[in-house]
Amino acid sequence: MSPAEIDALLLDGRVKGIPGGVDSFPLGKIGEKRWNLLREDLPLPVAVLRRSALAGNSRWMREFLALSRAVIAPHGKTTMSPQLFRQQIDDGAWAMTVATVQQLHICRQSGIARVVLANQLIGKQAIAYVLDEIQRDPAFDFYCLVDSVANAEQLAAAARLAAPGRPLQLLLEGGMAGGRTGCRDLATALEVARAVKAAAPHLVLRGVEGFEGLIHSDSPKDDAASVASFLDFLGEIAVACERAGLFAADTLILSAGGSAFYDIVVERFRRAGVAREFLLVLRSGCYLTHDSKMYIRERLPAIETLGAGPEAAFEVWAYVQSRPERNKAILTMGKRDVSYDVDLPMPLKWFRPGDGSAVRAVGPGHIVTGLNDQHCHMMVPEDSPLAVGDMVGFGISHPCTTFDKWQVVPVIDDDYTVVSAIKTFF
Amino acid sequence: MSPAEIDALLLDGRVKGIPGGVDSFPLGKIGEKRWNLLREDLPLPVAVLRRSALAGNSRWMREFLALSRAVIAPHGKTTMSPQLFRQQIDDGAWAMTVATVQQLHICRQSGIARVVLANQLIGKQAIAYVLDEIQRDPAFDFYCLVDSVANAEQLAAAARLAAPGRPLQLLLEGGMAGGRTGCRDLATALEVARAVKAAAPHLVLRGVEGFEGLIHSDSPKDDAASVASFLDFLGEIAVACERAGLFAADTLILSAGGSAFYDIVVERFRRAGVAREFLLVLRSGCYLTHDSKMYIRERLPAIETLGAGPEAAFEVWAYVQSRPERNKAILTMGKRDVSYDVDLPMPLKWFRPGDGSAVRAVGPGHIVTGLNDQHCHMMVPEDSPLAVGDMVGFGISHPCTTFDKWQVVPVIDDDYTVVSAIKTFF
Repeated sequence: MSPAEIDALLLDGRVKGIPGGVDSFPLGKIGEKRWNLLREDLPLPVAVLRRSALAGNSRWMREFLALSRAVIAPHGKTTMSPQLFRQQIDDGAWAMTVATVQQLHICRQSGIARVVLANQLIGKQAIAYVLDEIQRDPAFDFYCLVDSVANAEQLAAAARLAAPGRPLQLLLEGGMAGGRTGCRDLATALEVARAVKAAAPHLVLRGVEGFEGLIHSDSPKDDAASVASFLDFLGEIAVACERAGLFAADTLILSAGGSAFYDIVVERFRRAGVAREFLLVLRSGCYLTHDSKMYIRERLPAIETLGAGPEAAFEVWAYVQSRPERNKAILTMGKRDVSYDVDLPMPLKWFRPGDGSAVRAVGPGHIVTGLNDQHCHMMVPEDSPLAVGDMVGFGISHPCTTFDKWQVVPVIDDDYTVVSAIKTFF
Repeated sequence: MSPAEIDALLLDGRVKGIPGGVDSFPLGKIGEKRWNLLREDLPLPVAVLRRSALAGNSRWMREFLALSRAVIAPHGKTTMSPQLFRQQIDDGAWAMTVATVQQLHICRQSGIARVVLANQLIGKQAIAYVLDEIQRDPAFDFYCLVDSVANAEQLAAAARLAAPGRPLQLLLEGGMAGGRTGCRDLATALEVARAVKAAAPHLVLRGVEGFEGLIHSDSPKDDAASVASFLDFLGEIAVACERAGLFAADTLILSAGGSAFYDIVVERFRRAGVAREFLLVLRSGCYLTHDSKMYIRERLPAIETLGAGPEAAFEVWAYVQSRPERNKAILTMGKRDVSYDVDLPMPLKWFRPGDGSAVRAVGPGHIVTGLNDQHCHMMVPEDSPLAVGDMVGFGISHPCTTFDKWQVVPVIDDDYTVVSAIKTFF
């Protein structure tokens, strides 16, 4: 899927966010329609991305990478949009990260040469696809995680049979007690690393990986300490594997980093005591659009020099459809349209079509209290100006589970005019 | 989108649930591939529908409708699949129900003549599409809800301007305190009904509607009483509007009924005291696939004569990818793949590929404790047989928010062989 192929995809009213009555048109021509959100040219609910915020976040990441001497393999699962993958590669991304083989397939179809499957490679179809692709394309540079001898043996058996001509590159995953995947202690990690080494030349150990992003309490300070301690454990695994000669000769890779803690990742890996040079691979998926949990500026003063940090690019707009009680508004947006797994959407601004007024900030006391499949329940002050037919723009708390509710997301300029659109593949 | 057009849609590994390496093929030919879930022909996670359960549930609804003297307008938002809409029309559905104009558009593209928008019709694009469609197709029989004078006036103004040649048919919505949309008291309802009447010939009041499905406590008995009381309120609105001469001369419509309480709906509406004949329209969206909250058999003994009630048709399968702690398994399925808004998925059965054994029931003590975007956390007994690479089949608790995570859902026979597939349009 080249940019031209995506631009050629036909859109019509079957796609959520596209007007019902419009003749089908190529996605790449959406800007020519000069549709404007505030002129009600789009049916609501609609999710939009603010072009200026995307551009600012993109610039910010380029500067952060220059400052940190790390590389990034942004997690593609967030957006699943080849157009944004392309933007991320243009921002200097070293690779794309994915969580599943379907996501890998989208990357491969979009011409991404280097992909980190930040997950175990499991199951007949997934393993077969990866080994076939390794054999088919010598430029395909693929990495995946391993955290058990059982999985190492499954991969070795499949690679032996498929004989793709070069080893499957693995990153040894360290995990935390009560956490997700990953070896919980050094002894287990070394056992898995030895199983990989024993499966040469079918498998090769290229580095160590972990995901610290599950750490989340009400105390950012405690979280930072827990994250640092977990990263030190990953460093300990790397040092032990290095001493035991379990890594391949190629450049060592150390990788961690969701969207919340990548400054700490950089700092702790640098101090891990790994003797040889290594590539430090971060994997934030959310920087390009928004992360409401971005504490990074508070923790790392040097980053202040980069200027304005990431800002929210994502907005979901809905109509007020009912004011059934004095303190309640119901809006045309629900679980199908906006994330609700981390926090409920936050009303930011509102607009009354047709009366000549501008977009206004939503006042205090307007709070989303729940979502049904297709409805939003909002508590409002008794004197709230919101009336049936008004438009409300919401900020969101988790880009990943908002993106996956939209197959097409219009990109708007600061005047709310649609300038382009991105296609997602979930 | 005729059945033939949907059958012609091309699938490939970009679509979640389709193997990565396969050449693109028409959806209608998927059965010819003889793919089998247990032979690992499909990549996991995958959502599947059991053909035998769909057929049984379809038969059950036909018999329920014959018994109840009600009609059904199944809520299409659940599946958003024109193929299942067709099945529902073949089951005798009087109409399809939708929640948004994009959903209406999918119905119209699929040749559905009668549609209930069980929602307020709000916003320039939505109103324009409906009025255009009413004008364009004399056979289009459309209904939507109204619960405010403001909305009645907006619709009247738009209909006056568009002049589609026949009135927009409205159902007056009654609501409950603390609930969603709908007039909270009789006085408000009558005020709205009078505003509709005053907007003749542009608008016409065809009936009364409410949604009792928000009522849900830990006590089914209390819920049943609350539901009955709410339905009596809807009946009271209907009687008052009838006495005030606010309904159109055509057949009166009374509608309620999500998937949990439609037996009570039938009973209470019959006793409401409405003098003239009326059409009783139920709107369950979930009967065809599954509703884990189906109390209906316990409440209405006559229904026992219908034989086996609805059974779960939906399953989502994932691999065990890690057993990182003695009491923990991590599986390849997450928030992107299965609903988590009502209850977390329930492990039902498991299978070990390649060792010649059969599908086995998951033993006690296997409990899903959480989902990340792409991972499932499951608590397991220490002696759980589950190992890395095993497949686990999960039941789900809310079909609506599982369907919307899949663009294609394979339909399997009782041997887990794929016989067809349904396409969704979210």
